[in-house]
Amino acid sequence: MNLYEKLGAELEQQIKNGTFKYGERLPSIRSIHKESTLSISTVLQAMYWLESRGLVEAKPKKGYFVTYQPHQLVFQAVKYPARPSQGKEGMTDFVHKVYGMEQEELELTDFSLGAPHSSMLPIAKLKKIIRETLRESPEACTQYEPIQGSRLLRRQIAKRTTLWEKGLSTEELVTTNGCIHALAISLMALTKKGDTILTESPVYFGTLQLAQSLGLQCIEMPTHSLHGIDLEVVKGYLKNSPVAAIIVVSNFNNPLGFSMSEQSKRALVKICTNHQVPLIEEDLYGDVYFGKERPISCKSIDKEGIVLWCSSVSKTLAPGYRVGWIAPGKFMDDICRVKLVHSISCPTLLHESIAKFIDKSRYENHLRQLRSSLQHNLHKYLHIIQEYFPENTKVTFPDGGFLLWLELDPRINTGLLYEPALRLGIKYAPGRMFTLKDQYNNCLRLSFGLPWDEQTATALTKLGLLLQHQLVNY
Amino acid sequence: MNLYEKLGAELEQQIKNGTFKYGERLPSIRSIHKESTLSISTVLQAMYWLESRGLVEAKPKKGYFVTYQPHQLVFQAVKYPARPSQGKEGMTDFVHKVYGMEQEELELTDFSLGAPHSSMLPIAKLKKIIRETLRESPEACTQYEPIQGSRLLRRQIAKRTTLWEKGLSTEELVTTNGCIHALAISLMALTKKGDTILTESPVYFGTLQLAQSLGLQCIEMPTHSLHGIDLEVVKGYLKNSPVAAIIVVSNFNNPLGFSMSEQSKRALVKICTNHQVPLIEEDLYGDVYFGKERPISCKSIDKEGIVLWCSSVSKTLAPGYRVGWIAPGKFMDDICRVKLVHSISCPTLLHESIAKFIDKSRYENHLRQLRSSLQHNLHKYLHIIQEYFPENTKVTFPDGGFLLWLELDPRINTGLLYEPALRLGIKYAPGRMFTLKDQYNNCLRLSFGLPWDEQTATALTKLGLLLQHQLVNY
Repeated sequence: MNLYEKLGAELEQQIKNGTFKYGERLPSIRSIHKESTLSISTVLQAMYWLESRGLVEAKPKKGYFVTYQPHQLVFQAVKYPARPSQGKEGMTDFVHKVYGMEQEELELTDFSLGAPHSSMLPIAKLKKIIRETLRESPEACTQYEPIQGSRLLRRQIAKRTTLWEKGLSTEELVTTNGCIHALAISLMALTKKGDTILTESPVYFGTLQLAQSLGLQCIEMPTHSLHGIDLEVVKGYLKNSPVAAIIVVSNFNNPLGFSMSEQSKRALVKICTNHQVPLIEEDLYGDVYFGKERPISCKSIDKEGIVLWCSSVSKTLAPGYRVGWIAPGKFMDDICRVKLVHSISCPTLLHESIAKFIDKSRYENHLRQLRSSLQHNLHKYLHIIQEYFPENTKVTFPDGGFLLWLELDPRINTGLLYEPALRLGIKYAPGRMFTLKDQYNNCLRLSFGLPWDEQTATALTKLGLLLQHQLVNY
Repeated sequence: MNLYEKLGAELEQQIKNGTFKYGERLPSIRSIHKESTLSISTVLQAMYWLESRGLVEAKPKKGYFVTYQPHQLVFQAVKYPARPSQGKEGMTDFVHKVYGMEQEELELTDFSLGAPHSSMLPIAKLKKIIRETLRESPEACTQYEPIQGSRLLRRQIAKRTTLWEKGLSTEELVTTNGCIHALAISLMALTKKGDTILTESPVYFGTLQLAQSLGLQCIEMPTHSLHGIDLEVVKGYLKNSPVAAIIVVSNFNNPLGFSMSEQSKRALVKICTNHQVPLIEEDLYGDVYFGKERPISCKSIDKEGIVLWCSSVSKTLAPGYRVGWIAPGKFMDDICRVKLVHSISCPTLLHESIAKFIDKSRYENHLRQLRSSLQHNLHKYLHIIQEYFPENTKVTFPDGGFLLWLELDPRINTGLLYEPALRLGIKYAPGRMFTLKDQYNNCLRLSFGLPWDEQTATALTKLGLLLQHQLVNY
């Protein structure tokens, strides 16, 4: 560690433990220089480092101010068994409303988007690579693939895991039509109707819908917005009841934004191994980190093959290309069987194109840009939320991905405000979508994967004012 | 009807009812001319017409000879309930063996292929249309589609049904990742574990596998190799037991090759409507007809929306593009829900490219060529089968598609011969793959969707000799 990094890490520690609070000024460069043996330039470097991590911002002639907001939301789940709420709009209604049917093309600022806006994607380069793939394929990729899917793609994904504690080989991977397909195959291979699975709470609605459609009992575990699923409760549950699988979004969680710490990941893998309960790890956002390096996956420390690692390029490159994959550990045979039976093959042209895109380092280049744009957006969003949203709004501060979770005053119902917001040209994902129970009605999920421009800024401001307005009229 | 068509139809009738048998010479042009009031040129036209339908062939200076082979195979299914055979290789073993894992790249003549060989596909034109689609899409088709799928594709499919008795609209269609995905969605939407479905027998193994994977009870109905599923038995079954769905491949059946007559289709749709049992119609091969026009679909006469019409371009254009669709009738909402939950979106670039390919009449042009090549192949195959296969071989004579079903001497076991054939560089689909019971061991399915060249001819001849050899050594 360099000197400046050491100082930076110390300051980060103090910011995160609350010694320096949101909005406060850090000691000046000069004063730190005087009180330590560090040169001015080292101290400055430390400040740049903190700035690049989104913890502070410089105000000209005033110094460095803390922009990091601690957040301590704990979403305590209702007691088991989970029971869908009756008599009013539930998860499914909202999913249908927000994503369901073809919408009229309004001039809309869509904060409900589940993927970065297309303006953040390398469209021209994608076109180029597809043309290359077409040119080089004598059969124009018209034929069925082998059952595990494109070897080219699997090799490229495997190569990206070389530095893992336990890297993956080409043979350990199976390609899928996006991550939801990987999740669907996993659940079909591992569970049968009536089985119980454990999830986080709030939880990505697609997971809930899939589980419902397969007749599974979904138990939402208490989840901490900084540390993830409550491992003590999980352990307790496993002791008393049979569980067919546990599903987590380990990195830059959807919707909460946290990444599980390495320690938590190790503990969870150990719990699953001890109880022989498959761990389905959705790791779609892990490549979009704002820190120094990609957070590890549970798969990377999985010695006995209990983890099914599911991912895709849908959140980083091209949702519509349906390029995903799974490393199913010891469940390989079951996964292959279900994949073959339900889908035979994936769209080869797109899978091979993405493989080449990765191989030529274009993916890594694109990710660098994407991370930087998203991190930039995040700070812009937080600024407006601080300025225009109701005073007691709690907001997550994710270190990657593109999703923000807001907990508002308990009197605000984001489900009821959905239509009024839509009439203002603003779309968001109400909190009620992320649970089977009657909770999170005062929460919402916002994507910051939109281009940061006047339209976005205005829409976000308007949303804040709308929320304020509901409070005033309460 | 023209005069020559009338004469042609009369002769066809006589050929099909056995008045003129396979290999026999028809009355000469001159004699027909003399015995009727028809001109020489009219009689000649009738002969051309019969020839174009694959019923006769001209031998120079000898006249016209019957090439039509009647076939009367009735596959009588074992008594219910269906019970997988125990203790020896079953359906799943063979599917795994033939299609399962990555195979070493032998110099192989692969008669087991489930789609026409890539040399029969319009590769250059497909590449061109994809490049066009890429160029015209500002977002390079990276975004998620609306839930029913590409409107462009749905409109083109709908346009192809304009002349149907009851044509389809864009709104009545949902796109899927190929036909197996349409089938999977249908079964997931319509059935639950433990339900019973009725199928033909022999039946496409993918249907059996899918049903097994969903925990469904699959009852194989007796099926006539000329007329299809036995409607009397179906009716009887429906009277006594609850059935969740009936699945048929209505046109150029896989594996039997028949098309249900219009009368049978109407009867089946009526039975399903009366009993309110959904009819899943796989109609993947209907466009590859050798006769004058496309046989109708059950969907085209479905007034109450009881038919789920599933199809794709996988058997005509590009298996690897995963372009399929479904017209789910009154089950639209359930189908959309399952599609959304299990797959979110299809690969837009390929779906829109196929839409344009259809729109620009390139699909119809390609189909014309494909039909003509396949019909040509069929006669070459039948010729070699007649010449080199054991004497008591029965073979279907499909009027479309690219699949032949052979029933051999009962002493021949096509499962046991699979490996010896593979060592000769020949792959086929053993009959045992097409049933859950211990039957069809003396049957096999051959694709005639291979380019007709010396390699194919030699391999087919060798296969015949191998079968002869087993009989001699019996």
